[in-house]
Amino acid sequence: MRIALDVMGGDHGPSPNVAGAILAVQAIPDIAIVLVGDKPQIESLLSADGSCSSDRLEIIHAPQAVDMKEKPAEALRRKPDASIFQCWQLLAEGKVDGLVSAGNTGAVVAGGLRTRKFLKAVHRPGIATVMPTARGRCVIVDVGANVFPKPRHLLEYGVMGSVFAQRILGIERPTIGLMNVGEEEGKGHDLVQKTYDLFRASPLKERFVGNIEGRDIHRGAVDVVVTDGFTGNVVLKLSEGVFEFVMSMVQREIIGALSVEKDKATTALKELLGKYHYSAFGGAPLLGIAGVCIICHGSSKERAIANAIGVAAQGVRMRVNDAIVAELETLPCSDAE
Amino acid sequence: MRIALDVMGGDHGPSPNVAGAILAVQAIPDIAIVLVGDKPQIESLLSADGSCSSDRLEIIHAPQAVDMKEKPAEALRRKPDASIFQCWQLLAEGKVDGLVSAGNTGAVVAGGLRTRKFLKAVHRPGIATVMPTARGRCVIVDVGANVFPKPRHLLEYGVMGSVFAQRILGIERPTIGLMNVGEEEGKGHDLVQKTYDLFRASPLKERFVGNIEGRDIHRGAVDVVVTDGFTGNVVLKLSEGVFEFVMSMVQREIIGALSVEKDKATTALKELLGKYHYSAFGGAPLLGIAGVCIICHGSSKERAIANAIGVAAQGVRMRVNDAIVAELETLPCSDAE
Repeated sequence: MRIALDVMGGDHGPSPNVAGAILAVQAIPDIAIVLVGDKPQIESLLSADGSCSSDRLEIIHAPQAVDMKEKPAEALRRKPDASIFQCWQLLAEGKVDGLVSAGNTGAVVAGGLRTRKFLKAVHRPGIATVMPTARGRCVIVDVGANVFPKPRHLLEYGVMGSVFAQRILGIERPTIGLMNVGEEEGKGHDLVQKTYDLFRASPLKERFVGNIEGRDIHRGAVDVVVTDGFTGNVVLKLSEGVFEFVMSMVQREIIGALSVEKDKATTALKELLGKYHYSAFGGAPLLGIAGVCIICHGSSKERAIANAIGVAAQGVRMRVNDAIVAELETLPCSDAE
Repeated sequence: MRIALDVMGGDHGPSPNVAGAILAVQAIPDIAIVLVGDKPQIESLLSADGSCSSDRLEIIHAPQAVDMKEKPAEALRRKPDASIFQCWQLLAEGKVDGLVSAGNTGAVVAGGLRTRKFLKAVHRPGIATVMPTARGRCVIVDVGANVFPKPRHLLEYGVMGSVFAQRILGIERPTIGLMNVGEEEGKGHDLVQKTYDLFRASPLKERFVGNIEGRDIHRGAVDVVVTDGFTGNVVLKLSEGVFEFVMSMVQREIIGALSVEKDKATTALKELLGKYHYSAFGGAPLLGIAGVCIICHGSSKERAIANAIGVAAQGVRMRVNDAIVAELETLPCSDAE
């Protein structure tokens, strides 16, 4: 199995990407990684790491990087050969099975939309992310690929999120909820009302629990949360923000109140932070494309990159895409673009 | 000053509402409260409370209640004389200065839209809510009155939220941010892009910091967060949900790890919960209507109801509406409905 890694992507440049790739080839025996980025920099990082001269690490020279703040459409026009777009090209040509990037999310998605290698019956790809809940974990789709979707797109996100929950999280019969402003039927704007009706009329209806509210996500009310990319992106970043905020309050107001057991509490806090940190799961898959694409947090360090490569490999191995195509074939036809 | 209280609203029926009104007249000397609800029930609750026979508590008989799950449009049609709608009628007739309800939020808003007593130059009212941040407090508008607004509505929410932050939270020169999926100009869907341009061209431009992301809210990046009612409602309920989730993890994994200082930590946790609980601020104002309307959480107990009555009284006293009208007059005209 071959995975392309966007070495130029992320807040910290090539270093954590190359280090993550080294960790991944050491941990996963059947993987080869194509390091797509500036060749001299990659070679220097590899030779600095004495531990590794793996023949499962290959380099493709792509010196241009898309900046984290760059507009995706402009990047596509001005830097068509940037590292992330070359990763997509390798995937489109069948030279790799998947790609991993910690770069500009918009550019990752734009690259995928340009090659347009979507799975059969998928109208638009969506980004899934895994969040911790009081009952385990849930998947939320979409968190930013498609900020103004059609109802059909959301129905397909339900299918894709559900397959992901089954194959990757091991949830046998995932329940699905639609993000809304109230639980009752008829709540919300036109998009969610039409999406609600589509789910109710689909083969997913038995597992579709209906509308859910913001407070239901972390209670673990459902296994798959379906939402538009605008709301989903806010949900993802807000969850991180509240978590961070509450943890700093806990540090100051609870741990700060202790004396003899302060160290013990601090250790427990660090474990809690580690368990629910974004790097614990290892990246967000862009579901719906032919191949596997894992998008990492821009601030990912080597451990997060290695985890993401692991998730990509698992996606290939578990044939997530075959299952998505099979499930989508059970839906009624649609002419949504 | 006279405030109408929707005695039939909320998850717990008349009891916490009447108890909250008693607390409020005891605490606020210049207030009279009109208890709108089932007269026999109110009289029995008042006489059971020996401490109070205030002549500043008046009763208006309104036995019908809008159920918490009832569709607002249906409630308006089937129960035009329900307690919440009678509260609005009193406000429209100038018989009270404000109203407070812990009932069905949709019905509270629908009642306000029916009487259509909006402030001059307001196109659509919006619900504001106060949230704790690492740097103090912020106001977010709208959290659910208007799930599919026009750009002009959001501009007006910026004005109203800003006046509220000044007059009620005491923030002299509030900064304003637009909820979006990235900080850069040009991010997000059509609504936020057009709203961004409106703010940049308005007299608020000096205080408009641009787009903010989900993680910025609790960091206290801005004093006023402007968003559509769909996203805002998700933000509000998700924040509660993450807070609740993290607190239960802290209870189990941090406090659970302690032995000798467990009680001390538990006390600190309770204080933290109290400080950031929804009842700490005391209700969400529906801004933009002629009069003051405070919407409480359905699960409000007497303390939360009394706080909300206090916030309503403060809104009247601080002439929030006069300031809103004056600020809106500085905006360019608009034909948005």
